[in-house]
Amino acid sequence: MTPQAPTPAYRRLSVEQRRSQLLKAALELFAHRAPEEVSLDDVAEAAGVSRPLVYRYFPGGKQQLYEAALRSAAEELEQCFDEPAEGPLTQRLSHALDRYLAFVDEHDAGFSALLRGGSVVETSRTTAIVDGVRRAAAEHVLGHLRVTEPGARLRMTVRMWIGSVEAASLIWLDEGKEPPVDELRDWLVEQFVACLVTTAGRDPQTADVVRAALTAERADGAVGGLVQRVLPVVGDAGHLW
Amino acid sequence: MTPQAPTPAYRRLSVEQRRSQLLKAALELFAHRAPEEVSLDDVAEAAGVSRPLVYRYFPGGKQQLYEAALRSAAEELEQCFDEPAEGPLTQRLSHALDRYLAFVDEHDAGFSALLRGGSVVETSRTTAIVDGVRRAAAEHVLGHLRVTEPGARLRMTVRMWIGSVEAASLIWLDEGKEPPVDELRDWLVEQFVACLVTTAGRDPQTADVVRAALTAERADGAVGGLVQRVLPVVGDAGHLW
Repeated sequence: MTPQAPTPAYRRLSVEQRRSQLLKAALELFAHRAPEEVSLDDVAEAAGVSRPLVYRYFPGGKQQLYEAALRSAAEELEQCFDEPAEGPLTQRLSHALDRYLAFVDEHDAGFSALLRGGSVVETSRTTAIVDGVRRAAAEHVLGHLRVTEPGARLRMTVRMWIGSVEAASLIWLDEGKEPPVDELRDWLVEQFVACLVTTAGRDPQTADVVRAALTAERADGAVGGLVQRVLPVVGDAGHLW
Repeated sequence: MTPQAPTPAYRRLSVEQRRSQLLKAALELFAHRAPEEVSLDDVAEAAGVSRPLVYRYFPGGKQQLYEAALRSAAEELEQCFDEPAEGPLTQRLSHALDRYLAFVDEHDAGFSALLRGGSVVETSRTTAIVDGVRRAAAEHVLGHLRVTEPGARLRMTVRMWIGSVEAASLIWLDEGKEPPVDELRDWLVEQFVACLVTTAGRDPQTADVVRAALTAERADGAVGGLVQRVLPVVGDAGHLW
């Protein structure tokens, strides 16, 4: 669309519709490019509007658009771990990771640039948004563990796992999205089980959580499969127990 | 010291000595405050020199000083994981983590600000330095696993653990350095063992690494202790194997 020939759609949108149309265009661009490689002209072109119109809605320019897009992406990410409290824990985590990894897959370049940091659009506000997502994800996971007052070790374990999921996501993007996403998801669930069981050895609250969670797991589920694959590897180390 | 009354030390230092004196003063300040809270005047005062002298050595001002201090800190951090290839793997990791956590302890506020991001001094150069430390640490750990050509899963596992160690360090600082550093170290070593064993269930190369590493572990060592503490927790879950 050119300013000379506005289509009816150009005029028909309400303020809120226009704002969300611009935001959607920005999010799409920021998802697949580093923030440095996205200009306001790109956003205007992608939304089929003029650059002045973008400025009218986002007077703060690219920085404001980036933060608005990030806030919208953060809301989506926070919902990833909002899974019904039904079924075995590993199954719930699998569903949550399916959504999380689909998000990473869809927002690959932007996700990488955001978490790697050092970008011109990064501020204490953008890092606070990212940290908010981490906290929300941790709260959801702790909710699935049915703990109302999680102690320091349990909270730390969950945050450590979230840190390792982030690291894995970044490397997964670097490695051309290998291994396949389903494999990565199952592996990350197993890592969670392993980290939680390890902490259970040092923390009575986590031990109770693990005992309760294991009763709901099935032999043909994630934990059963993990045990079956790991036992042959550690079976020769009888000198340790 | 005031500019009016320079002490002999002010003139006696060589260019290199003066530079490293300024760097040391800067590093000390950046270690305990967020970069936003450190001014060039602070550095000049801490080093007992005038502000113009700091500018003579670091014409790029605070940004250049910060990057130089960060580079010097990065070198120290990279050496943390450079541990002689002797003794059980968990013992080597313990020694490396002792040094790493001592660094985190000594540079608490700066470490937090750096890894949290969003600071005005953060650029693609500073994030590249941080990423270089992560890569170097991963190389050292892979070296201790005696693997010359680590596959994707093994590399990912090591980087995931490094991601979780970073997350743990940040939370440890937030929580007033609790649990005590020795306990945190042992716990992180156990988390590494758990992550590695989990990956071993899915990756033949990692399985070989685990088998070889376990033969060198002792019953009264980290792995033996982990097994003894964890078995009672998972003992009731016989329905899973």
